[in-house]
Amino acid sequence: MAKFITIGERIHCISPAIREAMNTRNPEPILKRASEQLKAGATYLDVNIGPAEKDGEELMKWAVTLLQENFDNVPLCLDTANRKAIEAGISVYNRSKGKPIVNSADAGDRIENIDLAAANDAICIALCSKSGVPADNDERMAYCQELLERGMSLGMEETDLWFDPLFLVIKGMQDKQMDVLEAIKMFSDMGLNTTGGLSNVSNGMPKYIRPIMDSAMVAMAMQNGLTSAIVNPCDQRLMETIKSCDIIKNNNLYADSYLEI
Amino acid sequence: MAKFITIGERIHCISPAIREAMNTRNPEPILKRASEQLKAGATYLDVNIGPAEKDGEELMKWAVTLLQENFDNVPLCLDTANRKAIEAGISVYNRSKGKPIVNSADAGDRIENIDLAAANDAICIALCSKSGVPADNDERMAYCQELLERGMSLGMEETDLWFDPLFLVIKGMQDKQMDVLEAIKMFSDMGLNTTGGLSNVSNGMPKYIRPIMDSAMVAMAMQNGLTSAIVNPCDQRLMETIKSCDIIKNNNLYADSYLEI
Repeated sequence: MAKFITIGERIHCISPAIREAMNTRNPEPILKRASEQLKAGATYLDVNIGPAEKDGEELMKWAVTLLQENFDNVPLCLDTANRKAIEAGISVYNRSKGKPIVNSADAGDRIENIDLAAANDAICIALCSKSGVPADNDERMAYCQELLERGMSLGMEETDLWFDPLFLVIKGMQDKQMDVLEAIKMFSDMGLNTTGGLSNVSNGMPKYIRPIMDSAMVAMAMQNGLTSAIVNPCDQRLMETIKSCDIIKNNNLYADSYLEI
Repeated sequence: MAKFITIGERIHCISPAIREAMNTRNPEPILKRASEQLKAGATYLDVNIGPAEKDGEELMKWAVTLLQENFDNVPLCLDTANRKAIEAGISVYNRSKGKPIVNSADAGDRIENIDLAAANDAICIALCSKSGVPADNDERMAYCQELLERGMSLGMEETDLWFDPLFLVIKGMQDKQMDVLEAIKMFSDMGLNTTGGLSNVSNGMPKYIRPIMDSAMVAMAMQNGLTSAIVNPCDQRLMETIKSCDIIKNNNLYADSYLEI
């Protein structure tokens, strides 16, 4: 079994410092965030440039080149609603450490991101949603089938679609959490890879609770076969939990130093 | 769904202070350990008096009475190889907060503890083992069936047998951990209750790792249906994890204060 893959979420234009750095093409704040996340153990780095309607293509190329040149071709997850910007990013992307990830397709307006991923031999996050929250797992599985068939019909490997069950906020949707976990189990039983924005579950909770709740959730999800997640790798408790579950699942050989690796 | 049940393990004659207190019938050290565990959120308290071949009956009666009188009839788990001592403990046990637990029967020499539990309307921990570590889940399930049939033939409710899959040490049996978790899932799918000495998994690991590994394990086990465990309730990270999994499983309604309750 392969080790769990973490996608670091902290290069995101929602952060004022990162937005400013992107606008002015200032490398330092972006390199700092990248370095912190990689030191903390992130496998992939997400690069979220927002809608980026005006200069998205040039911005994404700049960010991809900057990060890969400075961090030994670190694999990246290209995150924007601007499809041309994703393609531009892939055009300068070095695959030596892993395929690029397209973040993301869904079964609604963003379904064509599957085509984009297929045309560019990229991984694609496939959100099992059309408009808003799926009502139940029948709906999740229907979207999963639709996205899977589209990708495979275009020649994608099924393992290059990473299915996202859509993690839901506990404060408001507490009774839906086991459905999400069950969806992960169903994807896993089909041999599919999975991912998602895990910290959605603790949205709105007091700050000190979030690492505790996210850690409990990731362990339960890993038991059900979750293979990756979009996370804050600087959340130490979360990363400790992921590494420990990888030991329990025998994805990584135990050594007393396993938390430091 | 019912909340997860924690059985506090810290009143144990392996501790020199507790052994001395039991030998001299000195209440203070025992009451102190009980109080700490109950404040930390333990549901049941385990009372391990060791083999107690000489004065086990009198000692168990003394301990049961002491704890229940001082802690509002706290429910107890009676833990000794001396069968007469368990019966003596039950004879003075007040059931108002829950049935006594017999710790434990197995499919080998201790199988008659099922009979003892049945005769006394007690819960019985049913270890799915005969001599040593079960080779695989076929063996675990065979013992489960044997213990279940014996209990039910004697009129026990099936939910009064709490099946223990035998948690195994990671250092040495890393590749068996998912079997143990799968066994819990099989018991759970049969509608059975489960328990076990969870901290076995982290035996021999550096001290700072043990709460991290035990917490990862309990969350994975709770995903698979584990309904209770014998734990150190003073392990804060572990208790936080158990409470968080109870929220995710909708066993307990979320409130921002859920960790303090």
